[in-house]
Amino acid sequence: MSFKVINFKNKFSKFNDLWSPRVISELNNYQFKLVKINNDFIWHKHDNTDEAFIVIEGKMFIELRNETVEINEGEMIVIPKETEHKPFSKKETKVTIIEPKGVTNTGNKRDKLTAPNNTWI
Amino acid sequence: MSFKVINFKNKFSKFNDLWSPRVISELNNYQFKLVKINNDFIWHKHDNTDEAFIVIEGKMFIELRNETVEINEGEMIVIPKETEHKPFSKKETKVTIIEPKGVTNTGNKRDKLTAPNNTWI
Repeated sequence: MSFKVINFKNKFSKFNDLWSPRVISELNNYQFKLVKINNDFIWHKHDNTDEAFIVIEGKMFIELRNETVEINEGEMIVIPKETEHKPFSKKETKVTIIEPKGVTNTGNKRDKLTAPNNTWI
Repeated sequence: MSFKVINFKNKFSKFNDLWSPRVISELNNYQFKLVKINNDFIWHKHDNTDEAFIVIEGKMFIELRNETVEINEGEMIVIPKETEHKPFSKKETKVTIIEPKGVTNTGNKRDKLTAPNNTWI
């Protein structure tokens, strides 16, 4: 059993590459991941799961087919499954993602931004 | 479909009662809940699920059978299923809980602190 307290700022200090999620904790079959983002990600969707984003520092945007949402520090959003979306930011932004274990960052697409899964930090 | 951005501070401003979780969002069959805590909760466990706590403001403690953990603002912990625990704080603290829909705050216990489920804000 693990009663480890996880400090977001400390975990973010341990990596610098962008768009490459690091797992920090598991909740049943779900994972908490940290990711640093900047500039554009790619359009993609997740066919089998919703995806939660919490902005820890900075400002994230998510382009959807009919609107673009802005998520600031201290805010969250859930993107429903099967929803095409394209995250982006204008400066480096720190984000927590919560989703089931095994979800690939680029969803239905394979791209140079596709990151390995289940990389812990 | 909902693309609503949720602001934690704004949602916390909408209620004042303690130990009474409010649902702010759903991720598949999981819920994000906000709770304000102060002083002692009761010993309890959740037999079927882990439970994640993120401290948004303040300082939370969780007493376990062999140790007490301290979770500060910007930190999280996952309490594994079947683990007896007693949350408490020394001043009012704002916490986000993530767990499957339908989980009762007092787990295997019924108490005056048992709160209704699925109360949205």
